[in-house]
Amino acid sequence: MAIRVFVTGGTFDKEYDELEGRLFFKDTHLPEMLTLGRSKVKVDVQTLMMIDSLDMTDVDRQRILKSCLEAEEDRLLITHGTDTMAETARVLGPVVRDKTVVLTGAMVPFKFGSSDGLFNLGSALAFVQTLPPGVYVAMNGRFFPWDRVRKNRTTGEFEET
Amino acid sequence: MAIRVFVTGGTFDKEYDELEGRLFFKDTHLPEMLTLGRSKVKVDVQTLMMIDSLDMTDVDRQRILKSCLEAEEDRLLITHGTDTMAETARVLGPVVRDKTVVLTGAMVPFKFGSSDGLFNLGSALAFVQTLPPGVYVAMNGRFFPWDRVRKNRTTGEFEET
Amino acid sequence: MAIRVFVTGGTFDKEYDELEGRLFFKDTHLPEMLTLGRSKVKVDVQTLMMIDSLDMTDVDRQRILKSCLEAEEDRLLITHGTDTMAETARVLGPVVRDKTVVLTGAMVPFKFGSSDGLFNLGSALAFVQTLPPGVYVAMNGRFFPWDRVRKNRTTGEFEET
Amino acid sequence: MAIRVFVTGGTFDKEYDELEGRLFFKDTHLPEMLTLGRSKVKVDVQTLMMIDSLDMTDVDRQRILKSCLEAEEDRLLITHGTDTMAETARVLGPVVRDKTVVLTGAMVPFKFGSSDGLFNLGSALAFVQTLPPGVYVAMNGRFFPWDRVRKNRTTGEFEET
Repeated sequence: MAIRVFVTGGTFDKEYDELEGRLFFKDTHLPEMLTLGRSKVKVDVQTLMMIDSLDMTDVDRQRILKSCLEAEEDRLLITHGTDTMAETARVLGPVVRDKTVVLTGAMVPFKFGSSDGLFNLGSALAFVQTLPPGVYVAMNGRFFPWDRVRKNRTTGEFEET
Repeated sequence: MAIRVFVTGGTFDKEYDELEGRLFFKDTHLPEMLTLGRSKVKVDVQTLMMIDSLDMTDVDRQRILKSCLEAEEDRLLITHGTDTMAETARVLGPVVRDKTVVLTGAMVPFKFGSSDGLFNLGSALAFVQTLPPGVYVAMNGRFFPWDRVRKNRTTGEFEET
Repeated sequence: MAIRVFVTGGTFDKEYDELEGRLFFKDTHLPEMLTLGRSKVKVDVQTLMMIDSLDMTDVDRQRILKSCLEAEEDRLLITHGTDTMAETARVLGPVVRDKTVVLTGAMVPFKFGSSDGLFNLGSALAFVQTLPPGVYVAMNGRFFPWDRVRKNRTTGEFEET
Repeated sequence: MAIRVFVTGGTFDKEYDELEGRLFFKDTHLPEMLTLGRSKVKVDVQTLMMIDSLDMTDVDRQRILKSCLEAEEDRLLITHGTDTMAETARVLGPVVRDKTVVLTGAMVPFKFGSSDGLFNLGSALAFVQTLPPGVYVAMNGRFFPWDRVRKNRTTGEFEET
């Protein structure tokens, strides 16, 4: 079962720039995280962009959509910032009908001790192997169909709409 | 979707005894790990035993089996040492037919920086929500039916038989 | 040997705000770090301010100076952002002559896996117990007298002037 | 100021063998820890042995003593298991009179999240730069002359005798 991972950035991959004292993006931590999880799932990781999801434009989302449609794999995992994850899911959902697409991310950067990233990656990778075709958000250990999910800005949790 | 978690011990939950300089069991780290993962899945955690799976006896396995059969929930997650995880799965598999049972564990204690525990817990929790009734092992990001899995003692990885 | 610790903020104590996706200050991590280090040195921790050292004003520095002069203890440890640590040292140095004052901080927040904070705290706590009266900066495992230190903005390291 | 570090093993350097499920020694973590601490102190790290200090023999201690006497540097740091650290100090103390020798270690392996190792290394490195000639144990943020220290087996802490 071949799985393609599209990296788009998000909190997941933020690092601390110790000279500037701020968070920034460098490379994705996906391979390192999969190694830590001793994952033996065959994945092909491809970085589409490396941005904060608050900065994601319609053009960016169309590019993600195009990548999903063109991918040869039937199962796609997308790492994404949480702030607009549900919005991107709503762009993909009506169009990508014959593939299983799972979006996931993290509330806290992987490099922080308190990150939820490894947990989310584990669950998203499992969901993408088992869910039927469709577009889903995988956060908080749960999965949500693309048309029934939102991020609660107050709690930071994803919930059904 | 109610999920019951049975804790049996294993590397997952080993801690370092700084006075004795050895690994030991105290309490399970499951609740702490679920909090770290910001999990919002409803689970009921119950500790059945807290042992190294190399020390697990037939009596212990019958107790796990009995707990599975008596559980009211249809979806059961079992944390277990990796050394005899496949063996326990083979005890449960032929008997527990109408529930989804997922066994998982870790190669490295959760309290070690390099642990695969959080990743495995995330994937196991996802698998138990999505797989059809049956008994499975969830390790290395993959799931294996109970009758087609073994741990490769040389690599430490689980593989299909 | 009684030691007073003045907390002023700095990278040391920055946390990640998972709702806002940015670094911020809450409480100091000093007590937690001392516990982690199994420190048995008697210290009295007092938070003077909780700010980024780039935002530190002359008024703030006078307040730190006043606190040093009024402290009953002869040995004072100050946690401080690295960007203007040398500047604060130059305010304290000419005035505080009969106490051992050690400023330290971190390039990476304690809560990040890659933090130098615990190492710096260990060294600063040792320096403040052993150095003669005077004002020093303790970073990179070394100590520097207040009038012979600067932060190299390119490397992020402290060096003698 | 040149400093030589003698590595003898101890909890400090224990790793988790994920195939065997037990702690073992491989290479020292000293260089990695110094990098994490952004240390710019010039040190020369030399591994003398890699053993649990409970297994340390008189022959081993004589070898450490010989290494101290023959070292060209005036300042020596020794990493050592905590169980017999005070005993080794008592072998070195009466003989090594013109060098500053600091023994340190850890209660919890560096690779565990809850390790005191980085804190102890920071403090030991500071003590070895500032204390007068003599043999000392540096633990719990404190330093102890070789003839006035013991490890309290009940609390795991070092205390004056």
